[in-house]
Amino acid sequence: MEKNGSIVPAEFPELKNETFLRAAQGEQTEYTPVWCMRQAGRYLPEFRETRAAQDFFATCRSPEMCCELTLQPLWRFPLDAAIIFSDILVVPQAITLTRHKLEGKVPLIGFSGAPWTLMSYMIEGGGSNTMAKAKAWLYRHPEASHRLLTLLTDVIVDYLVGQVAAGAQGGTEEGRGLKVAPMLQALQLFESHAGHLGPEQFAEFALPSIRSIAKRVKNKLLEDALPAVPMIIFAKDAHYALEDLAQSGYEVVGLDWTICPQDARQRTGKDITLQGNLDPCALYAPKEKIGELVKKMLEGFGSQRYIANLGHGLYPDICPEHVGAFVDAVHIHSRHLNKCS
Amino acid sequence: MEKNGSIVPAEFPELKNETFLRAAQGEQTEYTPVWCMRQAGRYLPEFRETRAAQDFFATCRSPEMCCELTLQPLWRFPLDAAIIFSDILVVPQAITLTRHKLEGKVPLIGFSGAPWTLMSYMIEGGGSNTMAKAKAWLYRHPEASHRLLTLLTDVIVDYLVGQVAAGAQGGTEEGRGLKVAPMLQALQLFESHAGHLGPEQFAEFALPSIRSIAKRVKNKLLEDALPAVPMIIFAKDAHYALEDLAQSGYEVVGLDWTICPQDARQRTGKDITLQGNLDPCALYAPKEKIGELVKKMLEGFGSQRYIANLGHGLYPDICPEHVGAFVDAVHIHSRHLNKCS
Repeated sequence: MEKNGSIVPAEFPELKNETFLRAAQGEQTEYTPVWCMRQAGRYLPEFRETRAAQDFFATCRSPEMCCELTLQPLWRFPLDAAIIFSDILVVPQAITLTRHKLEGKVPLIGFSGAPWTLMSYMIEGGGSNTMAKAKAWLYRHPEASHRLLTLLTDVIVDYLVGQVAAGAQGGTEEGRGLKVAPMLQALQLFESHAGHLGPEQFAEFALPSIRSIAKRVKNKLLEDALPAVPMIIFAKDAHYALEDLAQSGYEVVGLDWTICPQDARQRTGKDITLQGNLDPCALYAPKEKIGELVKKMLEGFGSQRYIANLGHGLYPDICPEHVGAFVDAVHIHSRHLNKCS
Repeated sequence: MEKNGSIVPAEFPELKNETFLRAAQGEQTEYTPVWCMRQAGRYLPEFRETRAAQDFFATCRSPEMCCELTLQPLWRFPLDAAIIFSDILVVPQAITLTRHKLEGKVPLIGFSGAPWTLMSYMIEGGGSNTMAKAKAWLYRHPEASHRLLTLLTDVIVDYLVGQVAAGAQGGTEEGRGLKVAPMLQALQLFESHAGHLGPEQFAEFALPSIRSIAKRVKNKLLEDALPAVPMIIFAKDAHYALEDLAQSGYEVVGLDWTICPQDARQRTGKDITLQGNLDPCALYAPKEKIGELVKKMLEGFGSQRYIANLGHGLYPDICPEHVGAFVDAVHIHSRHLNKCS
């Protein structure tokens, strides 16, 4: 079946809701698609129940658990994309199962941490307010840091391509030599610790890998006759690098909540889809207030070339009903905006 | 003795190094003055020794201890300003003693946390990565939040004016009805948690108090026939509000290390002194590298209308020698820049 220039293998159900993909690819949408970072998370009682008896990595290694957790928010809210519940180490089978169980309802997003973010976790050995140990490495051992970042870049490229390829392998017989439907329909790279770097260190130690990953993933998919998937870069607190991020080879730039929507549009140009950026704490507000904030955000970004999301992951103590209010408000207000324009 | 339009009372020695004050007031300086946020801190072995047996608030309540800790970095490095080692609750006597012991070497800076930062500490009851509890208050109880912020604004105005006034009282006999030398020669307001707010919440819950504090402190000093002192606003991670901060009534705007110096100059205009913004982690670098980074920073800001500093407080594991290298590099390179221009 021809779909976005690719053949959907019999194994995977046809995609019913393409709004997210259309926005990511810069096409017109009827309404603004919406999903939430960390939507498969601790704020859901069913998530806490499923996870209760399990260690984090044990959960990540169980395809059934990952699938269950990935789908939980979709059962509650009319989200326009799912994001795999996973860690960088998760095995691809998790993903296959999830894709089947999604029943083509919405696209499935794969992801990875970006090299600097992974490096900082590796060196800090856990969380840190300042990332001072990891940053000390950049200042003291720039060459060794570059080697580590290059190594991580290689791993991430393979990991992301592997996620897409795993899906295509299901359709080898009919798909050989042809573009087949990918396992995942989009990829997001999280540079969660960008804000610890200033503009110079970001330009030296983060941006080159971010660029390289986009380029190499796309080339590798092409080489392997796999379909292209839109890629999202989310570099949290990298306000100083918006222009560079818009030019770094990704279809979508994710934004945190400290960026003014109008400024973001102006600084990134018209050829990019923006994603974000409601303050996750705004979901503590009463539902009517959430509606007002969403309306303002949509007016700032415009309803096209835009994927609504939070500016950071969902916090564990957010009331699920308020997440629903957020999702509904995006759909309602964007349809209204589209009608008016 | 006439000095900056004020009479220095006999009790306080005449100020020998006015470079910091000249820069803060927008006057030409021979070199760029420099001090470090948290320069009286744990990175100094003598600080750890003095503080070892003491609880933090006990230390803050002891004028002798505060004085000792404030002066320690001055004995080591040719810094151009001292900042009182203190907390918002410290009693003014601490300050009197310190001012005497400083022997007029450099100006003494008083400070306070800004209302939103104090409110967030009050609500969180400690540190937090997200300030989610405090931000939930802003979203759920905006009116109560405004009342609390107004209350804190009142306290901070009194506290800051009190610090300046305490010095003038020493010179009452000769100074009555005249402007007398202030206890503190500058005031810095720390909005350390600005980055947790987005542009809208900052505009609603932080900026009005910041503006009000500058205006009311200045008016109160004038009313009480106290001399004006330059005021510094440091709103960490408030990249989205630079233009507003430059217009908020302060002589100096402090910057964190995520702001590019050239952009800051362009966005804040020529009528403001900028302060900052070396990444504190840059002090982990070898000394030659620190020199290079300082040179670049000075070239970005220019050597005039500029006070060199870090973009955040000194970290406890920084080698004191590297702090010395930073201070020296500012003095050397700025003198050189001044010669060349």
